Amino acid sequence: MSQSQLISGFSKLQTEEKRKLVQELCEDPAKAARVLGSFLYQDADLQNLLSELSENTISNFPLPYNVAPNFLVNNKWYMVPMVTEESSVVAAASFAARFWAERGGFIAKTIGTQKSGQVHFLFRDDPDKLTQHAESISRYLRNKGSSLTEKMEKRGGGIISLEILNRTNLIPDYYQLHVEFETADAMGANFINSILEECSRTLGEYFGTTEGFENGSYEPVMSILSNHVPRCIVEVVAECPVSSLDNITPGQSGKDFARRFALAVEIAASDIYRAATHNKGIMNGVDAVIIATGNDFRAIEAGAHAYAAQSGRYTSLSKAEVHDGLFRFSLTMPMAVGTVGGLTKNHPLAALSLNLLGNPNASMLMQIAASAGIASNFAAVRSLTTTGIQAGHMRMHLPNILTSLHASIQEKEQAMLHFRSNTVSFHSVEDFLKKLRSKNP
Amino acid sequence: MSQSQLISGFSKLQTEEKRKLVQELCEDPAKAARVLGSFLYQDADLQNLLSELSENTISNFPLPYNVAPNFLVNNKWYMVPMVTEESSVVAAASFAARFWAERGGFIAKTIGTQKSGQVHFLFRDDPDKLTQHAESISRYLRNKGSSLTEKMEKRGGGIISLEILNRTNLIPDYYQLHVEFETADAMGANFINSILEECSRTLGEYFGTTEGFENGSYEPVMSILSNHVPRCIVEVVAECPVSSLDNITPGQSGKDFARRFALAVEIAASDIYRAATHNKGIMNGVDAVIIATGNDFRAIEAGAHAYAAQSGRYTSLSKAEVHDGLFRFSLTMPMAVGTVGGLTKNHPLAALSLNLLGNPNASMLMQIAASAGIASNFAAVRSLTTTGIQAGHMRMHLPNILTSLHASIQEKEQAMLHFRSNTVSFHSVEDFLKKLRSKNP
Repeated sequence: MSQSQLISGFSKLQTEEKRKLVQELCEDPAKAARVLGSFLYQDADLQNLLSELSENTISNFPLPYNVAPNFLVNNKWYMVPMVTEESSVVAAASFAARFWAERGGFIAKTIGTQKSGQVHFLFRDDPDKLTQHAESISRYLRNKGSSLTEKMEKRGGGIISLEILNRTNLIPDYYQLHVEFETADAMGANFINSILEECSRTLGEYFGTTEGFENGSYEPVMSILSNHVPRCIVEVVAECPVSSLDNITPGQSGKDFARRFALAVEIAASDIYRAATHNKGIMNGVDAVIIATGNDFRAIEAGAHAYAAQSGRYTSLSKAEVHDGLFRFSLTMPMAVGTVGGLTKNHPLAALSLNLLGNPNASMLMQIAASAGIASNFAAVRSLTTTGIQAGHMRMHLPNILTSLHASIQEKEQAMLHFRSNTVSFHSVEDFLKKLRSKNP
Repeated sequence: MSQSQLISGFSKLQTEEKRKLVQELCEDPAKAARVLGSFLYQDADLQNLLSELSENTISNFPLPYNVAPNFLVNNKWYMVPMVTEESSVVAAASFAARFWAERGGFIAKTIGTQKSGQVHFLFRDDPDKLTQHAESISRYLRNKGSSLTEKMEKRGGGIISLEILNRTNLIPDYYQLHVEFETADAMGANFINSILEECSRTLGEYFGTTEGFENGSYEPVMSILSNHVPRCIVEVVAECPVSSLDNITPGQSGKDFARRFALAVEIAASDIYRAATHNKGIMNGVDAVIIATGNDFRAIEAGAHAYAAQSGRYTSLSKAEVHDGLFRFSLTMPMAVGTVGGLTKNHPLAALSLNLLGNPNASMLMQIAASAGIASNFAAVRSLTTTGIQAGHMRMHLPNILTSLHASIQEKEQAMLHFRSNTVSFHSVEDFLKKLRSKNP
């Protein structure tokens, strides 16, 4: 029973009516009602709060709220909240956090927190006029916008720079007013967008009231912040003597481990097929913290991958080097986050996450989330270059595979023992059971 | 009270003990206990199911589970489940879905569903030997892996091609075994990774047992699927006569709307600052469907942005054109999703989402999620090129702004009326109240 025609006025229905309508579109409406109902909270205030976050909300979609202990970042310990559905992410991050905590921890640094936005416009007049008026325009816009920036300036933010860029090489008559912002501990999207829209209007006012400009020569196209934030950057480094990497895999020297690890990262830096997956592994850790703290993961994803692509060749966000007996693994990435505004206060668990992290400011949250990113990346590349990624993954699936092959309790016990030191795959488990059964028919 | 030292054995604690330890790290442990507890489900089976998805799970993080009605995709109606915390995403997608449903709906097409993976290896011997043995190696690997691919082949999937690529131009002695896969309705990560690890072993076996190869010349580095999936592509198109776009904004001709819309998309195609944000808007819609159906959004994000970057210039995933009186808006993007395996069955709401969509196969789910992406993109670019993005955003915030300015019920009513046709900003609301209060002191 799928929707059979256009539905009018859906958003104005009561939640109960919406839910009913959705249930009727499912194969088993009674079952659908049970499932949707089972995820609602009995506490009416809590449920209202959650339902008001979006539109047409008919239930809650819970993701596991997890913690990864033992993150040592700039000599401070953190228990890091991570929201993720991927089974191995938290285990891997916890492993790497502890591994590096025992080797001095992560050293993190915020390189910048600037964001930018653009008024995209057409200007059908002599480009030189824009150049001549550049300073005057900048002063005019700052003056006119001062009431909007006042509050932000008190918090240490505001407009850093305004610049008109000639982009007519890309599109005829196309220019940008490129504005750089500092937004203190807010992600700042509303602030930036409001200022830009005001700039767009004010720019029209300037051209309309200043002598020498043709009427109608200015056409604003759109005003919007950018999720490409190459001046809002965090760097995190994990470093240790190569010798302290000895025997991570039994029998493997630290030197060999470091060589193979650095080679794997170099491959990620050279090849887009590997780079995308490598960076995805970083984002497994980053996004889990981003969601747990009520930030917008689509913005962080867009920023990270655009940054990875900005040189003209999509590449790895992390680097690994071996120099003078030292292994150095580092991650440099953009991250526009907030610790005030947005969902950070509205979602009780986002507020709790920030509290658990010691109420960090935006810059510190960048450092913690990037540490979760480098931890995830380290754990993944370590697995890949030593045991392979499937050993850990498949070991977690072993009980399910055995169940699906109708193993007895006795067979299961023998299999669990055998596969402690053997590779798990559907095939190898099937083989093992076959042999076992032929021995004891 | 942050964590003060390394904690050993955390993952082995009972959930209750983990929760207690986390609470003690918060400013107000009793409040933290209440918050964490309030998000748990009373139904023990349901809570167990959710807790088993990850590691160190101490609560659930609910995101709003919403629906967007009126998606007409290839002449079939869909009520689309969307999980997102961003307040405007569902409203915007619903608006655009209905808008296009009234103009023929979205026409979607799956261009391919192939995924790939690589065995990255070093080969310290004569490259010509690899070329000479290419076919023999391919046969050998297919033979040895046949027991792993048997089941997938029955479902219409398997290995499509195996190829050894010389990448020594990037890194000395570096080669890839590049394998293309078809994975039917599974996302296929486990399948692909298992095959690749088997290939890596088998490749070693081949070199070890075939005459003419130096001992130790083969060093496998890592074996892993790629999230860059440029042959797993979906395309969705929205098309209508320019004349049927008349008066979307009162008084604006369809011709002018279409021209400005196409210009905005051209700007996104030319400039990385705009492209990142433009694509982020697409992903707002796509990810909401991806999460609702139990798929992995980090994989989809990495694939989408890497694809946007693959030409060497990071660009827009969507295109808009005006030709012969027709407005054509299209989105072409990679998307590796599954409708079996992973979380799709394990999470009851993911299963319900798929059921609500009529139990689509992977290819159909790609088309539906891409439709949500183009809908989000259309709504955003329409706002940006007409009223501006803040009008809608800020109108939703108006009650909060009024509350924060201590407006009376009477003042609130007058403000709501006034701002139906005026731009909302913190500043303009403050001004409005000031004037109101000076009139009626």
